[in-house]
Amino acid sequence: MSTTQTSKIEIIKSSTTKINSVDFENLNFGAVFTDHLFECDFKNGKWQKPVIKPYAPFLIDPSTRVFHYGQAIFEGMKAYKDDNDDIWLFRPDENYYRFNKSAVRMAMPEVPSAIFMEGLNELLRLDEAWIKKGKGNTMYIRPFMIATGTGVVANPSDEYKFMILLSPAKAYYSGEVKVLIAEHFSRAANGGIGSAKAAGNYAAQFYPTNLANKEGFQQVIWTDDATHTKLEEAGTMNVFFRINDTLLTAPVSERILDGVTRKTLIDLAKSKGIDVEVRPVLVQELVEASKNGTLKEIFGAGTAAVVNPIVGFSFREVYYELPKIENSYALQLKEHLTNIQHKLADDTFGWTVKV
Amino acid sequence: MSTTQTSKIEIIKSSTTKINSVDFENLNFGAVFTDHLFECDFKNGKWQKPVIKPYAPFLIDPSTRVFHYGQAIFEGMKAYKDDNDDIWLFRPDENYYRFNKSAVRMAMPEVPSAIFMEGLNELLRLDEAWIKKGKGNTMYIRPFMIATGTGVVANPSDEYKFMILLSPAKAYYSGEVKVLIAEHFSRAANGGIGSAKAAGNYAAQFYPTNLANKEGFQQVIWTDDATHTKLEEAGTMNVFFRINDTLLTAPVSERILDGVTRKTLIDLAKSKGIDVEVRPVLVQELVEASKNGTLKEIFGAGTAAVVNPIVGFSFREVYYELPKIENSYALQLKEHLTNIQHKLADDTFGWTVKV
Ligand SMILES: Cc1ncc(COP(=O)(O)O)c(C=O)c1O
Ligand SMILES: Cc1ncc(COP(=O)(O)O)c(C=O)c1O
Repeated sequence: MSTTQTSKIEIIKSSTTKINSVDFENLNFGAVFTDHLFECDFKNGKWQKPVIKPYAPFLIDPSTRVFHYGQAIFEGMKAYKDDNDDIWLFRPDENYYRFNKSAVRMAMPEVPSAIFMEGLNELLRLDEAWIKKGKGNTMYIRPFMIATGTGVVANPSDEYKFMILLSPAKAYYSGEVKVLIAEHFSRAANGGIGSAKAAGNYAAQFYPTNLANKEGFQQVIWTDDATHTKLEEAGTMNVFFRINDTLLTAPVSERILDGVTRKTLIDLAKSKGIDVEVRPVLVQELVEASKNGTLKEIFGAGTAAVVNPIVGFSFREVYYELPKIENSYALQLKEHLTNIQHKLADDTFGWTVKV
Repeated sequence: MSTTQTSKIEIIKSSTTKINSVDFENLNFGAVFTDHLFECDFKNGKWQKPVIKPYAPFLIDPSTRVFHYGQAIFEGMKAYKDDNDDIWLFRPDENYYRFNKSAVRMAMPEVPSAIFMEGLNELLRLDEAWIKKGKGNTMYIRPFMIATGTGVVANPSDEYKFMILLSPAKAYYSGEVKVLIAEHFSRAANGGIGSAKAAGNYAAQFYPTNLANKEGFQQVIWTDDATHTKLEEAGTMNVFFRINDTLLTAPVSERILDGVTRKTLIDLAKSKGIDVEVRPVLVQELVEASKNGTLKEIFGAGTAAVVNPIVGFSFREVYYELPKIENSYALQLKEHLTNIQHKLADDTFGWTVKV
């Protein structure tokens, strides 16, 4: 290991690399990590010296707050390498902003941009050999923060750890995605933490999603918990519905994550002259549109899954299959988005940021 | 360290003890732990060999699921030492049952009784010097389970760690407790995880509770998230309301934790001839009862706080003070309950279990 120092970040380089043991053509999502990680601790009311160091386990006390009270948030972003070996981020300011919004809701300290952004850029540069060129290759980025104070009393921690991990990634889902529309279980409460990327929101979905999996559905589309009549979002994706040639998606709210892919697709669709309506979408409306043949597409939108076409949905034990169509909005939007991300199409929106 | 082996649990004894450094008269809740902890890992689809070992930090990977997706549950119980130096648990089967109920809802493996109960008993016997005699002294017990599988993909883990920590405890709250009735924020959704003792439920409450603290309220009483008209529970306590001489408390539901203290107090109150109504209690009803003088008491009920009288509540910026009364139900019930727990009163219900 060799230690160098940039202006602010201490860099402890790994003396070895795992890169040669990785099969970049066959990656399970989120399973492989690069040689280094970024870390910064919050203690005594302030952020301590940030460090980039070899990816490795760390010591933790059994009474650490994150284990007992779930005070933890994360983000999901991606980096892309273009044909000139330049590395690009996609709307990183959106993730940075949302991370701190999540931090506030979870009573955690906000992370300064100098730590989040410079840490991320420095880490990507150090492990740049892990970022592969070509469409379909991406570097998934996982910034996260956990409560590291100790003591089993249900109060906010006074110490935190912020980290960034890098994980080379291919596609998230493989195979066809069928969804189940939630009738009983819910993801978020009014006045709850649904719009925060809080760790606890995800574990809450595992059991109902397992039940859906057993019936042959890969994902659940959540509905509002009070009436189960409004379509909200999927576990890790916002959802779009195409009825005739109009694209519909629910407005973001306290219950729904304000997805970067969602807002990007809305702008892209509009720029293509597609009619987009952001308004509550009712389950009943979807069922009727399916019955009368006007429902053309459903797709999920998220950083990990990008744009994910859905082949059918189930509601009250009835399965509704989607038609196979030409000129799918999902595929057009996905193509355009990934071309912008990989610098293969003009970025007229100014979304891509060079590392 | 010396290693012995009971029938099933490996015991690695600490070669030193921290007990002499502890001021048992001035304990902050949940801050001090005994010399040992109990641990059992779940791997390859089964529970591994349980072990009791010195309390110490352990190594963990940064991509461990509990950090990213909040898959974590816990319990809170207490042990008491009577004047004959016998150690007693209070309704431990209730906590064991609830723990596994939480496990199912969070898509985690259930813990066999042979691990949970024998681990707990063995640990209490080993660290029995830490359990002090006399009313007001208790040993707080924290069984918990975390997802220890690695990888940043939002699916249930395939590995888990179950642990039991012991923390000597005095009172939970000190000073007067005023509460704020939630009008905007919520604790749980219909079809959500409110009735599970899931870690994420607690961090979700920190921010709104901080806001309440700033206005001078120690706790929030949560209302149903759909209408905010029904009184549900506090952060770590169920809630009772006394209007005239009737004791009211909300029915448990998917949104409300089925508290052991709550069900115990219902039985105790009934045995004293107190009229108890388990039914939805409306905020409006509480406000009216306060205005017309029929609201006599509000109190919280939970293992940590035992029975906690509340001196007033705020709703829509108006503060309603509770009268000072003789023959408070809260104090009568607390006295009776703690006498049973400390073996100073007959346990006609069969709630206490000898270790
Ligand atoms: C609950 C939820 N909804 C939606 C999304 C999609 O958001 P984004 O497009 O910013 O990745 C995600 C993933 O980040 C998510 O976790
Ligand atoms: C949310 C919540 N409600 C109520 C309680 C009271 O339950 P018990 O009496 O079983 O401790 C607790 C504490 O355990 C709790 O965490």
